[in-house]
Amino acid sequence: MTVLTRPILEIDFNNLLDNYLTLKRLASSSICAAVVKDDAYGLGASEVAELLYNEADCDTFFVAHAIEGAAIAPKLPKARIYVLQGIGEDSLETFRENPQLIPVISCPEMLDFWKANRVNGIKPAIHIETGLNRLGFRENELAALSDDDKSEFSLVMSHLACADEKGHFMNEHQLEAFRRLKNDYFPKLPASLSASDGVFLGNDFQLDMVRLGAAMYGINTAPYRENQMKNVVRIKAPVLQIAPLPKGDFVGYSATYRANTDRKIAIVSIGYGDGIPRSLSNVGKVFFKTGCQLSEARIIGRISMDNIICDVTNVDNLQVGDTAYLADDFYTLDDMGRDAGTIAYEIMSRIGKNKRFVRKIKRDRL
Amino acid sequence: MTVLTRPILEIDFNNLLDNYLTLKRLASSSICAAVVKDDAYGLGASEVAELLYNEADCDTFFVAHAIEGAAIAPKLPKARIYVLQGIGEDSLETFRENPQLIPVISCPEMLDFWKANRVNGIKPAIHIETGLNRLGFRENELAALSDDDKSEFSLVMSHLACADEKGHFMNEHQLEAFRRLKNDYFPKLPASLSASDGVFLGNDFQLDMVRLGAAMYGINTAPYRENQMKNVVRIKAPVLQIAPLPKGDFVGYSATYRANTDRKIAIVSIGYGDGIPRSLSNVGKVFFKTGCQLSEARIIGRISMDNIICDVTNVDNLQVGDTAYLADDFYTLDDMGRDAGTIAYEIMSRIGKNKRFVRKIKRDRL
Repeated sequence: MTVLTRPILEIDFNNLLDNYLTLKRLASSSICAAVVKDDAYGLGASEVAELLYNEADCDTFFVAHAIEGAAIAPKLPKARIYVLQGIGEDSLETFRENPQLIPVISCPEMLDFWKANRVNGIKPAIHIETGLNRLGFRENELAALSDDDKSEFSLVMSHLACADEKGHFMNEHQLEAFRRLKNDYFPKLPASLSASDGVFLGNDFQLDMVRLGAAMYGINTAPYRENQMKNVVRIKAPVLQIAPLPKGDFVGYSATYRANTDRKIAIVSIGYGDGIPRSLSNVGKVFFKTGCQLSEARIIGRISMDNIICDVTNVDNLQVGDTAYLADDFYTLDDMGRDAGTIAYEIMSRIGKNKRFVRKIKRDRL
Repeated sequence: MTVLTRPILEIDFNNLLDNYLTLKRLASSSICAAVVKDDAYGLGASEVAELLYNEADCDTFFVAHAIEGAAIAPKLPKARIYVLQGIGEDSLETFRENPQLIPVISCPEMLDFWKANRVNGIKPAIHIETGLNRLGFRENELAALSDDDKSEFSLVMSHLACADEKGHFMNEHQLEAFRRLKNDYFPKLPASLSASDGVFLGNDFQLDMVRLGAAMYGINTAPYRENQMKNVVRIKAPVLQIAPLPKGDFVGYSATYRANTDRKIAIVSIGYGDGIPRSLSNVGKVFFKTGCQLSEARIIGRISMDNIICDVTNVDNLQVGDTAYLADDFYTLDDMGRDAGTIAYEIMSRIGKNKRFVRKIKRDRL
């Protein structure tokens, strides 16, 4: 037995790279761009981009903000980096300093800004709206573009709303709209419609470029079947204390759990301050390995900033310093998202930004 | 009109300092320690601790993990920094290198570890359990301590479960238990029971030291009445695009919103990747200022990683580049927490860790 206090975040770069290569095989006629926005969904954009650039010949990346692109550009000297939120007064300087960054222009006002502030040598992408009703030129705005306007661009893209549901009517509807608008307004430009969920919808959706994000990070973007991707994120934390919980006693803030029989509890050194969703209070699960046995323990009471309390009445031989498994191959962030009433994307994005973790990158060099 | 792309996080250090001083007046007989764990609830532990140390003579701090203490210690050369998660194999070196750090010992196993690995010149605090059923020595464990064991400590502390509810029976129950255990086992030690919510329960709860966290950061820890604290966090983001939403159209991922009449929408450049809870999808609010008018716009569809879509049909004269207010003095993180089904603490902790914000500290030097 030893005493430990810090949570551990393990990011499996072997599996991340495998996932990228699997997706690349599925979309073998397309350019397979990597989406590393939001610090690669919290997993570390610099390290992820460098891995894909050096070990999988990936030369096309997507970020949301120009500053995110500027942070990774030096490590990817020959890559193109598309910036999804586009260009504005507050990012113009960053584009000027980083000629690898390519803005995605999503509305006429931004196009006007671009035309007044062109950066030498860069041909932007244009985002067109096909049904998500988020960013993108609407059809009347496309119709108002001059030929000169249209010649500004080097790529036409859109984004699917319901690609994680294979039979959803929106998928065909958006593909149809995208084809029509592209042919009418940008017949000669390369085209990109799908993120990783779209890749699984088949060749029709893959076009010239796909933008691989969530699935590469191990999220099941095709939840209508077993995940084809390998798990990338594992979260552990040590047991700080084990204590009896007498019948009638309350647990945690606001006393939301009460013991109806004598129980045994473990206090685990991780909390919502580390990114574990507080909505797992009284519903989430923590796992323990005792010998070859995997035991499931229910989270009881409110999750607090630094600690989780769980019911270990049925976990034998547990000791202070033992490891609690919060997320692993047998209980992924998809599972946690389902239990927490959200999606793995949101949890991953939160977890990865926390500095309190002992951060480990798993990577076997060949 | 101009085009802008980046969200803005403003942290009001004037108000944070005022809040600390207000709390200090309320607990004028106690040492007023500042809780800066979890990177000061995400607001930046180094800056917050430095502010309180230099401008409010605060010399006692609490963090959760030793590495958090080590990060702020150099700027607070004469301060004591208590470490709530205590000490273990994975933090021993950090304690040895930073003699200002004082572990809070919460169970017999950790005490044994301490006795085998004492750090010269440091007298730990002891955490005792009084009803939260989280960390802390249980009574039978206190009874088993030798006189030598008891002489290890310099402070005895516990933590309240329901201090945000003034009449809750747990408050008196815990105060009573704490007094009894302290008198039986540590009659001569200084004592600390309350965080900032406990300060509002009156003098009885303040004892020798209070640990000021949430209320200092502007959170209403006494929600049974109007907030006595000033707001500290303001979040803004620019409108990237304005578009008509035709009757019958869907919005966002999984098409969870459908327009029953023709609407007008704005796409705002902030999302759950920036820490805005995804649970605000279809229920949250965004505000706009047009002239002297404050307009409320409902968030529609799913919040995505980088963008929020809201219904601005009734917001007049809105333009691309205008500011959307996500949190401000008129709609605080407490309000957002209520709408999102969580608490301000969790949101603050997420928001502050995001590097995509333009981060502004508001501080008027006198």
